[in-house]
Amino acid sequence: MAERSIIFPAQEFRARVARFQAGMVAEGLDALLLTTPADVFYATGFLTRFWESPARPWFVVIPQAGDPVAVIPSIGAALMGRTWLGDIRTWDAPDPRDDGISLLADTLAGFVPATGNIGLPMGLETHLRMPLADYAALRARLAPRRFVDATTCVQRVREVKSDAEIAKVRETCTIAARAFERVPGFAHAGQPLRDVFRDFQIALLSEGADWVSYVAGGAGPDGYGDVISPAGPEPLVQGDVLMLDTGAVKDGYFCDFDRNFAIGPATDTARRAHAALWRATEDVLSILRPGVCACDVHRTLCESLRRQGATPSGGRLGHGLGVTLTEWPSFTPLDETPLRAGMVLTLEPGCITRDGRIIVHEENIVLREDGVDLLSPRAPADLPEIIR
Amino acid sequence: MAERSIIFPAQEFRARVARFQAGMVAEGLDALLLTTPADVFYATGFLTRFWESPARPWFVVIPQAGDPVAVIPSIGAALMGRTWLGDIRTWDAPDPRDDGISLLADTLAGFVPATGNIGLPMGLETHLRMPLADYAALRARLAPRRFVDATTCVQRVREVKSDAEIAKVRETCTIAARAFERVPGFAHAGQPLRDVFRDFQIALLSEGADWVSYVAGGAGPDGYGDVISPAGPEPLVQGDVLMLDTGAVKDGYFCDFDRNFAIGPATDTARRAHAALWRATEDVLSILRPGVCACDVHRTLCESLRRQGATPSGGRLGHGLGVTLTEWPSFTPLDETPLRAGMVLTLEPGCITRDGRIIVHEENIVLREDGVDLLSPRAPADLPEIIR
Repeated sequence: MAERSIIFPAQEFRARVARFQAGMVAEGLDALLLTTPADVFYATGFLTRFWESPARPWFVVIPQAGDPVAVIPSIGAALMGRTWLGDIRTWDAPDPRDDGISLLADTLAGFVPATGNIGLPMGLETHLRMPLADYAALRARLAPRRFVDATTCVQRVREVKSDAEIAKVRETCTIAARAFERVPGFAHAGQPLRDVFRDFQIALLSEGADWVSYVAGGAGPDGYGDVISPAGPEPLVQGDVLMLDTGAVKDGYFCDFDRNFAIGPATDTARRAHAALWRATEDVLSILRPGVCACDVHRTLCESLRRQGATPSGGRLGHGLGVTLTEWPSFTPLDETPLRAGMVLTLEPGCITRDGRIIVHEENIVLREDGVDLLSPRAPADLPEIIR
Repeated sequence: MAERSIIFPAQEFRARVARFQAGMVAEGLDALLLTTPADVFYATGFLTRFWESPARPWFVVIPQAGDPVAVIPSIGAALMGRTWLGDIRTWDAPDPRDDGISLLADTLAGFVPATGNIGLPMGLETHLRMPLADYAALRARLAPRRFVDATTCVQRVREVKSDAEIAKVRETCTIAARAFERVPGFAHAGQPLRDVFRDFQIALLSEGADWVSYVAGGAGPDGYGDVISPAGPEPLVQGDVLMLDTGAVKDGYFCDFDRNFAIGPATDTARRAHAALWRATEDVLSILRPGVCACDVHRTLCESLRRQGATPSGGRLGHGLGVTLTEWPSFTPLDETPLRAGMVLTLEPGCITRDGRIIVHEENIVLREDGVDLLSPRAPADLPEIIR
């Protein structure tokens, strides 16, 4: 299984860590502590579904110079041993007396002087994946060293994808696109939505997804009520718009795009809404360049929709994408993040079609120096119809 | 989709919250703050795969008396509105200026006097699913109120399952058991392990899983090297032991058990190891009663294996199960948790068959006042062989 657990050559990970370390020098961080599946995978290539178990914390320490150190439960030693990391320190977890905290404190103390700073992501879209009481104990043991926010340090690196990463997202998008092509084969009037969700997941796996971390969607006349509910037993009905949205995973990289289908002939309302969303996406694709801000994308999408007589939905209209289903920035009026070449993004305009009904359209792209490359094969301009 | 988002009648959730509140009174907690998918689902029935997006925090506040309040991103209002909760407060997330913290602080302040305590799970197997900087801001706003560890309060309630919950786990186990029956149809010498993982996930979905949060396993001569790696392209070989382990999900409830298969005729080593693991599990099933401690289960498994000439593997040999893949307690020498009637547990003995190779056997059970009910249909005593 060696080649699968590594995903990329060591050089890819060394380059990532070197970028982290450049930021750490700039911000005065003596070490960076990573605890989440995405951050650990990003730095090491350690990929496992075992994170599904909340029982054990996992730590990667990146010193300001030199290679990272893994401080992990011994059950992960074999898999971490197949990554590029040479220094792997383990304990028998779970240990109710000391669940890796002494080992982690000693590791950090080896890199961080008593007056030094330990960076930890603390900002928007982050969390600390370890028990809060253990974090308090760690801080006490390492005092007077300070734990400081390293969100910027991590996010400015992770948000710019390498060519190898972009190829991975494109591959996952291609898998999902093939699965979407199968939808007319299993979605039709009379079919319960939960069966459609099931068959869509099977299609994603059959087409090459390693696993399916996210499937959502909805169905209803002229649109759907919300886009995060599990599917129920209600059958699709002629006149419904069916939407399926997926975050499938291949080699640890996500896609995140959706497709809409009219069950039976499309209503004029649905057809017009879909065309407006498709056009709004085109409008963004034509203006997107590095330096444009996240909030500009939101404004462009909304203005295009309004120009076409459509009513934009609330919420964010797209976001970053990569080793998690969603990443920063957010296409909202409040996010002023400047977009950078190498960012992998979703464009996700939605519009309100009638009271309590929306249609959402989503594509995945990568921003290049001179414009945009689509990673998801472009949706058809006209709402596809499933007619039997 | 109403009936799917609720899963249980309101009475089930009211009973859970009443049990939380009894613990809160005993521990002097004026409110309990829940942030994780499992805790939120447990208290409300709010079930969505949207947690896969790290972008937004979600909060449920349980006062010492009265109904819980949801403080959530507006994108979740429709789904939360179909649960039993009546008081749902929303904000437009993600908001980089204030991502729900004012709203949450105001909600907590409404229940907790200035000298009061807010409970938050901080112990083993817990984490805080919100940005650490926002947690610091929340504490500052609510001072001098104190945030105190509520791990015991939450875990003593969640660990004892209602009959309705036990029925859900049993249903998921039954789905997985049907999928395991299909394994000889797609796993055979020459088949890459990654294809076996894919076909197994398809089988789980086909048999009724809503989604498949966890599949792991391994294959090798007389056993496998580790049990958390993704599957690679290496084909199964005659003489291998193939193990598949799954945490499939139905209505938010997990199973977590495995099955082993010999590819070609089983070797004597593999056959003997499997028989010893099966017998060790029988030995625990016969002695398990409320009041037995978690460490006693570990000891019984190890003693049984040694008596049969087998070498127990390290790590924990079973754990709790329910709304996450793994829950406390842990069957290790260090966990002195007394087992209680209503606990849903896995028995997961492993033994070392040769250098670097193990075989692991796992069943799911519920502890009753007078003994044990199996939730996973009992594995065959003899290692099944897949011969073509």
